[in-house]
Amino acid sequence: MAGLGEFALIARYFQRPGRALGPGVVLGVGDDCALVQPTPGMQWAVSSDMLVSGRHFFPDVDPRTLGHKALAVNLSDLAACGARPRAFTLALALPEARPEWLEPFSEGLFALADAHGCALIGGDTTRGPLNICITVMGEVVPGQALLRSGARAGDDIYVSGTLGDAALALQCLQGKAQLAPAALAKARQRMEQPTPRVALGLALRGTATAAADVSDGLLGDLGHILAQSGVGATINADSAISLLAARADITGARGQFDSEVPYAQALECVLAGGDDYELVFTAPPSQATAVQAAALSSGTPVTRIGHIHAGSGLLLVNANGDRLQGNWKSFDHFA
Amino acid sequence: MAGLGEFALIARYFQRPGRALGPGVVLGVGDDCALVQPTPGMQWAVSSDMLVSGRHFFPDVDPRTLGHKALAVNLSDLAACGARPRAFTLALALPEARPEWLEPFSEGLFALADAHGCALIGGDTTRGPLNICITVMGEVVPGQALLRSGARAGDDIYVSGTLGDAALALQCLQGKAQLAPAALAKARQRMEQPTPRVALGLALRGTATAAADVSDGLLGDLGHILAQSGVGATINADSAISLLAARADITGARGQFDSEVPYAQALECVLAGGDDYELVFTAPPSQATAVQAAALSSGTPVTRIGHIHAGSGLLLVNANGDRLQGNWKSFDHFA
Repeated sequence: MAGLGEFALIARYFQRPGRALGPGVVLGVGDDCALVQPTPGMQWAVSSDMLVSGRHFFPDVDPRTLGHKALAVNLSDLAACGARPRAFTLALALPEARPEWLEPFSEGLFALADAHGCALIGGDTTRGPLNICITVMGEVVPGQALLRSGARAGDDIYVSGTLGDAALALQCLQGKAQLAPAALAKARQRMEQPTPRVALGLALRGTATAAADVSDGLLGDLGHILAQSGVGATINADSAISLLAARADITGARGQFDSEVPYAQALECVLAGGDDYELVFTAPPSQATAVQAAALSSGTPVTRIGHIHAGSGLLLVNANGDRLQGNWKSFDHFA
Repeated sequence: MAGLGEFALIARYFQRPGRALGPGVVLGVGDDCALVQPTPGMQWAVSSDMLVSGRHFFPDVDPRTLGHKALAVNLSDLAACGARPRAFTLALALPEARPEWLEPFSEGLFALADAHGCALIGGDTTRGPLNICITVMGEVVPGQALLRSGARAGDDIYVSGTLGDAALALQCLQGKAQLAPAALAKARQRMEQPTPRVALGLALRGTATAAADVSDGLLGDLGHILAQSGVGATINADSAISLLAARADITGARGQFDSEVPYAQALECVLAGGDDYELVFTAPPSQATAVQAAALSSGTPVTRIGHIHAGSGLLLVNANGDRLQGNWKSFDHFA
């Protein structure tokens, strides 16, 4: 739109005059800095994620879902720490200032922000290849943050929700896999509109010993927990594959994999897919009831997929306990 | 470099094991979130800036100066609020992971960060068109932040340091102006390695009534102060032009402008150039001595260039009080 300058753009799409700024937000968008008054005694949890067009999303993706996803992947980091969302900044590089893109993008962004009481307090807009960088800030009681370093031998390993559907959708869109239209639509929504597990993360404080969000793939993100906790793990592949929501859509009429091809594909999506933004977390068996209570109170299903043991490395077994071999690589932007 | 993955890259260039994390930093780079313990009673000042290759810097710029500048422009926002730097996140999109770029970039970044006691606590790295997004966090005593909205009729208007040299350097590099090599080198350093006026911002708390940093051009950034304070201003063009450090290099032997061409060019650089990251601020005449004391204690020269009056708009006059006409536009990424 001709004449829509940088400051008019910010005012029109990213300032909402007349609305409360959010608890503790003293000054929002429009000055050199935003000002926030932290809740006394709380720690701040901070995370940044950058989404690049053509890499993290298709350039023609619905801007409303993109606004949702850009914030969701950041809220997912707060969820993994058990932090309560408070505020975020948005830096945006745009090839051009198009209202038909900016309006739905900001609507998708604010819808998720409002649902989590997370206030947009500042940021930056510039011209450039489409790039969205959000920094999110949340609060956590000192000592209660869920860290990657807390897993202990004997702990169970759990995953929230469903896993692998985002990767399966991507494979379908890239022509590497096939799903019926209705099943693809569901899987695609998992890829484009992930649900940050904030409520579950909060409910797991004091129960989980370690947590991470699954952004780069289960094995990779669990691998961070193992490395930082100095432990190893065994994963039951059949439990893991049950996490794929689209499982029924790629198995035969009897609900079983007809051949090794779809099985291997499903397993790859679940183990190495990423982009689902579920939580992988650990808790001792003595906390199994508390884990289920956290799942119930947060409305988030959780599935036990394995356990932590002393040593190092990650062992994958089937229901019979037989070891599976494979070469599943989690996502690495520079590998 | 083949085989330098995302996490190895972060570990090698952006984690510094064995170093103290910084005051209040409970957990730094390497988990889903960083954890920071705010100083009791303090407010948090937060700002984000995104630098895009080919727009904010030349693609072949020395990565060491780029690391400096990427953080400097953010610290400048804290300076404009009178906030003390505490921590920052870095999100980085890179076309490729090249050690010969990453090493000097991180060195330039950390040199400035260490000088200001500002800890790198987290971030993101991804592949994409070169883009650097930093979010900086600082602390300020509640009620003491310098805001754009505090200017009052009768206040004097000051600018720190020198102004317009960054824009003049850019004009030279674009072939639109000429400077002798030594003078260009000095001006170019102003463009590539701006000095965030953090100490001055801190010293001005309780003295300045309003402040902003000059990133988009003096008239534009002062314009934000005027708009948000509901006041007008008169600027003395001759005082303003004295801010250009390279003034002597583009005037004749007698130190005066020989023609209107270099005068107009110098004035344009000072009024509309931007990218110098000086502070423009206001203070009542009764605080003139306190302003000079702040300048002295922070080692930052300040120059009075005009005053605030009731009403609106910005009037430019010469030393005789004659009104100057012009069409100086501050920088707008989408205009």
